[in-house]
Order: sequence, then C-alpha cells, then structure tokens
Amino acid sequence: MVNAALLIIGDEILSGRTQDKNIQYLATWLNEAAIQLVEVRIVPDVEAEIVAAINALREIRDYVFTTGGIGPTHDDITSASIAAAFGVSHGVDAEAYRRLSEYYGEEDFTDARKRMAMVPEGALLIDNPVSIAPGFQMENVFVLAGVPKIMQAMLEKLRDRLKGGRKVWSQSLTIHAPESKMAGALERIERDTDSVSLGSYPFFRNGNVGTQIVIRCPDKSLINQAMDALLSAVARMNFEFERPSEIA
Amino acid sequence: MVNAALLIIGDEILSGRTQDKNIQYLATWLNEAAIQLVEVRIVPDVEAEIVAAINALREIRDYVFTTGGIGPTHDDITSASIAAAFGVSHGVDAEAYRRLSEYYGEEDFTDARKRMAMVPEGALLIDNPVSIAPGFQMENVFVLAGVPKIMQAMLEKLRDRLKGGRKVWSQSLTIHAPESKMAGALERIERDTDSVSLGSYPFFRNGNVGTQIVIRCPDKSLINQAMDALLSAVARMNFEFERPSEIA
Repeated sequence: MVNAALLIIGDEILSGRTQDKNIQYLATWLNEAAIQLVEVRIVPDVEAEIVAAINALREIRDYVFTTGGIGPTHDDITSASIAAAFGVSHGVDAEAYRRLSEYYGEEDFTDARKRMAMVPEGALLIDNPVSIAPGFQMENVFVLAGVPKIMQAMLEKLRDRLKGGRKVWSQSLTIHAPESKMAGALERIERDTDSVSLGSYPFFRNGNVGTQIVIRCPDKSLINQAMDALLSAVARMNFEFERPSEIA
Repeated sequence: MVNAALLIIGDEILSGRTQDKNIQYLATWLNEAAIQLVEVRIVPDVEAEIVAAINALREIRDYVFTTGGIGPTHDDITSASIAAAFGVSHGVDAEAYRRLSEYYGEEDFTDARKRMAMVPEGALLIDNPVSIAPGFQMENVFVLAGVPKIMQAMLEKLRDRLKGGRKVWSQSLTIHAPESKMAGALERIERDTDSVSLGSYPFFRNGNVGTQIVIRCPDKSLINQAMDALLSAVARMNFEFERPSEIA
C-alpha cells in the first residue's frame, strides 16, 4: 500500500470563510492512482506551523501534497516555508521566471508576480496550464495551488511522477435498518474476512433510518466474499436493502 | 487569544466518500464564541492514529474538538481511543446508560447500542438532543458526533463550558483588479497596522479577475484604520471596488 498526506495551508479555511473543496477531490483522485490518503492537516499561514507539519508528514508518509499559499501576495508564504523545512535556500527559478515573464509580458510582470517564480533550491516544477505560475516538487512533497480548478489541473500534470501501490476497491450496500441492528454481523464479517474493512454510515431520509455499508479491500474476490456474507445476514434478518453498487 | 483544534475521525472523509461539512461550521461557531480554530487534522479509524493526534493536540491547544466514531458499530472506536490516550479505563456511564435505555426501551436496547453508553473514566457527558447517545468531555477535549446535525446540536449544549478570549472581527473588500496589483499596498498596510492580518483571495467571475481582501483583528478601530488605508490605496490606483462588508 502506498499512502499520502494532504497539508492545506490557509487561514481562510480555518476562519470558516471558505468551504474546502480539495480534500474530497484529492482523496478520490489518489484512490484512482492506487494511493491511499491517510491523513489531512490544515494549518494557518504561519511559517513555523507549516514547517513543523511538513517535517512531521514527509517523514512518515510516502507522499505529501500541499495546497494553498503560492500566489503573489504577502500572505503567500508556502514556498519560502518549504525551503525552510528542507533547510535550503529560496530563489528565482529561471524556467518559472521565463514562463511567467512570457505570460504577463515585460510591463505587467510586477515584483509581486516575480515572487511566484521563487522556489526552494532543487525543486522540480509542476506545470500549471490554467494560470502559468507553477507548483513544485521537493523530494516526496508536492506543492499545489489552493484554487480547486488550478489544483486539479496540476494534479493531472504530475500523474506520471506518482507510483501507486495496490488499488483499494470498494462496494457499498444500502440497507433500510438502523446500523445498530447490523453491528454484530458487521463485526463478524470484518473479523472473518482478512484485510477487508467495513464502514457503517447511518443516514436519515424522509423520516426513515438506514445504513450504508462500504466494503473496502485491495482484493476484489474478498470484497465479493464479504458482500455475500453481508447479503446473507441482511436476508436472514429480513431487512429491506437496495442493489449493491458496482465494485469501483 | 483562546485557540482550538479539530480532529476529524473518519475513513469516509479520507476515502473521498463523504464531503466534510463540519470544519466550516465549527470554525464559524467558534469564532462567534471568541475562540480561534488554528488547526484541523483528519485521521482514519485506527486507534494508534487517534491516540497520537489527541495527545499531540491537547498539549498545545486550549481546546480540542473531535467529530466522528461514537456510534454503535465496530468501526466506532473514538471513545475507547480517547480512554487509551488519557490512560484511563473505558466503561459504562450510568447516566448515559439510563438515557439510552429509556430512549430505546428494554427490548431494543441491544448490545451494540449499549456500547454508546461507554465513556472514558472521569468523562463529563455532552447532551445529544437529536439522537440521545451523548458525547463527552475529558479535560480540554470535547468528543462530538460526526453527523453534522447532531454535532451542531451538541455544540449548543456545551456553549457554557467554553471560555472565549477576544473575538477576532473581520471586514472584507471586493476589488475588481488582480491581487498581484494590490500586493505592495497590502504588505505595507499589514506592516503599518499592528496586530491586523490581511488575507488576499483571488476570484474569477464572468471572465473577470478580482480579489477579496479580508482584514482581521480583535480591535475594531484597527480594522477601520486598515480599511481606510486600503480604500485610499485602491482609489489612488483607480480600481473599481464594491462597498466594504459590515465588520462582523
């Protein structure tokens, strides 16, 4: 299994100003690439907090993605903070400078915009097909924009640099009964089916209580085995249920 | 200033199955209570990860809130994990048992549901007016449900237990110009106005580029001073702008 952490850098998420849209997108995208998102942290635009989080996460996770704080203004301190975390200098990247200079033109390539050409020493650029200002990679750390459209475009550009492990497949079953009535069966199935994990998520819809069970495992045949056991338990208890989702 | 961290416990957020709705709500609610959310972590339903995060956060933050993992099924391990983090035993709380027993009735108070009466030794219950099964408080750690409606109701129930510091007020200004053109002015205003922080957030609307500037400070008069300086800079540069928001 290959794992990853996401570090979101942004006062705007912590103040409640902005609703995060990057966690779910990245989680789903990584899952497709056979990489499991196993931790997320959100920290403010404060260098010491960014440095501490980066240095904690890059040691213990295979990949670390960051979003936010790579724009042209004073509150965009991600790039300098990553340089500090790695203990390297922070300076202008000639290729990033060339791209930005060409995009904005001589006159509009202001000092503020020139900041966006600065990366930690040794960084590898990540292309930005939306607004040119690149992200960058330092070892196992990938520094992306916070604006969802730009973040998503950057992710596509680095697909070839990421090496996945085994993809975790999942299949879900919706049951029209409270999860507490399923608890014993779920525990038994998870125990009996090695390496399968079962998640149980209650919902309330039109005044009725129900449960969505999600079976996850890197081995499709074990998912089939757990789903068979689950359907048999549900049928024995005479609960209504919907057709299982496709394994995806 | 009084600060807080949020620990979200849930495979369903990390797998991309569920879009988080608790961060923004809690951030906004805490801000009203004059408490600043300064960190969020999301970890999977794995005891060692929960214990490590709880013990890291409760040392360095004034308050820690957790959401998720307090239901009746095998994947609900938050309560036992908090007991492990504090090094105390985990057992049935008589009052929680009484409430749940009364709510479900003798016959429907299954073993699975009885798990929801278990809390760490020394915990103080947090009322749940939606579905009865309580949250709990251990020292500066507040353990809440993950379902947004229940989490929100629990928060209201513990308002009197939280002690805020100075409220951070904010005011925003929308400018119809790219943020890079504002960068110099923003940096100068933040430097000149002690304890004020300025956030700069670009947006794209109907093909036009704009910037929302958010001024934040516990002192309203300093917000006024920074806003005056900002409006004067914007006027000098001849940018279009909208009426500033109320200070809130």
